Amino acid sequence: MITVHHLNQSRSKRVTWLLEELGMPYTLVNHQRDANSRLAPQSLKLIHPLGKAPIIEDGEITLCESGAIMEYILNQSTETELRPANNSAEYCQYLEWLHFAEGSLALPVIATLIMSMETRDGSKPLDGYIAKEVHLDFSYIESTLAERAYFAGDTFTAADIMMTVILEIAENLGLLKGREHTSAYLTRIKQRAAYQKAASYG
Amino acid sequence: MITVHHLNQSRSKRVTWLLEELGMPYTLVNHQRDANSRLAPQSLKLIHPLGKAPIIEDGEITLCESGAIMEYILNQSTETELRPANNSAEYCQYLEWLHFAEGSLALPVIATLIMSMETRDGSKPLDGYIAKEVHLDFSYIESTLAERAYFAGDTFTAADIMMTVILEIAENLGLLKGREHTSAYLTRIKQRAAYQKAASYG
Repeated sequence: MITVHHLNQSRSKRVTWLLEELGMPYTLVNHQRDANSRLAPQSLKLIHPLGKAPIIEDGEITLCESGAIMEYILNQSTETELRPANNSAEYCQYLEWLHFAEGSLALPVIATLIMSMETRDGSKPLDGYIAKEVHLDFSYIESTLAERAYFAGDTFTAADIMMTVILEIAENLGLLKGREHTSAYLTRIKQRAAYQKAASYG
Repeated sequence: MITVHHLNQSRSKRVTWLLEELGMPYTLVNHQRDANSRLAPQSLKLIHPLGKAPIIEDGEITLCESGAIMEYILNQSTETELRPANNSAEYCQYLEWLHFAEGSLALPVIATLIMSMETRDGSKPLDGYIAKEVHLDFSYIESTLAERAYFAGDTFTAADIMMTVILEIAENLGLLKGREHTSAYLTRIKQRAAYQKAASYG
């Protein structure tokens, strides 16, 4: 049975909602935001290094990122309405909006949310949020690439393609300084013939 | 054959890279950023209302969002290394990083990029970027929901679950004012029993 690590007022509502739609049983573990800082508690970090809800556990699997969790759960279900048949017109719409939620919409909405928050000391809340996220994300990436050759294991996958474009921007901004495994990964992956052909288009 | 609408220095490199890895033929259409503003040209808006690269066309299908395009293309291929077998340990890693790129990493990196840009008039570039994106995204959402009951068509799918959580935040921030179809959609979707059960967890 899937265990859902739920954080109040977070994206983890997506996961319990989907499981309820499917009528699939699950175990709920509640984590509470700090009443003052609104940050997620340390208990989530014990489940996954990113410490962000939602996280699910299923046997040996620990998985985060709500879009990934949606697909993982749907792969276990025989239900066909919640995810239309592969490459039908409805499937393409499903896929576009599934990715649009985080790929396009989240940045302007979450940035607006953070900028709308007041800080007691007059500092800019977005700057602090970004600095914290940059540190968290690149520490996690560095520790992952210290252990494996590619993001999904020993083999190059399309996940490496998704990650590289953002890593290149980060490198240009100086965000990879001191992240030796990440920098070495980027140098190595850019040697692939297919990358070089794509990069030649500018 | 797939047509790739490519924009220089954009996420569209992901798509040509994947197609090169797979050895799949494609037609490339080049779009060039404005040399001064760095904005995408109007020609992309003629292909898809969001006007953002990458966009692919394949027969009747027009698809944007690079994560969605990766999955769409991989569904057409018999290659198994670039996307590991469903629900294997490697697949879960693949899926997590595929979604992490935009779901977690893009916000702090792209926000850092935009804040690093200088403006000639001293205005804050991030504010302008966010306002523009908010207008673009919610106009597109509104026009979509004016035409259909749900994001992927006549049927509720997991894409609606992904979208709703961000739309709720947007509503609380007042970003849905004047977007009647979007507001009505949100009211209607919150009446689902599964939503209400998930929302009861806080």
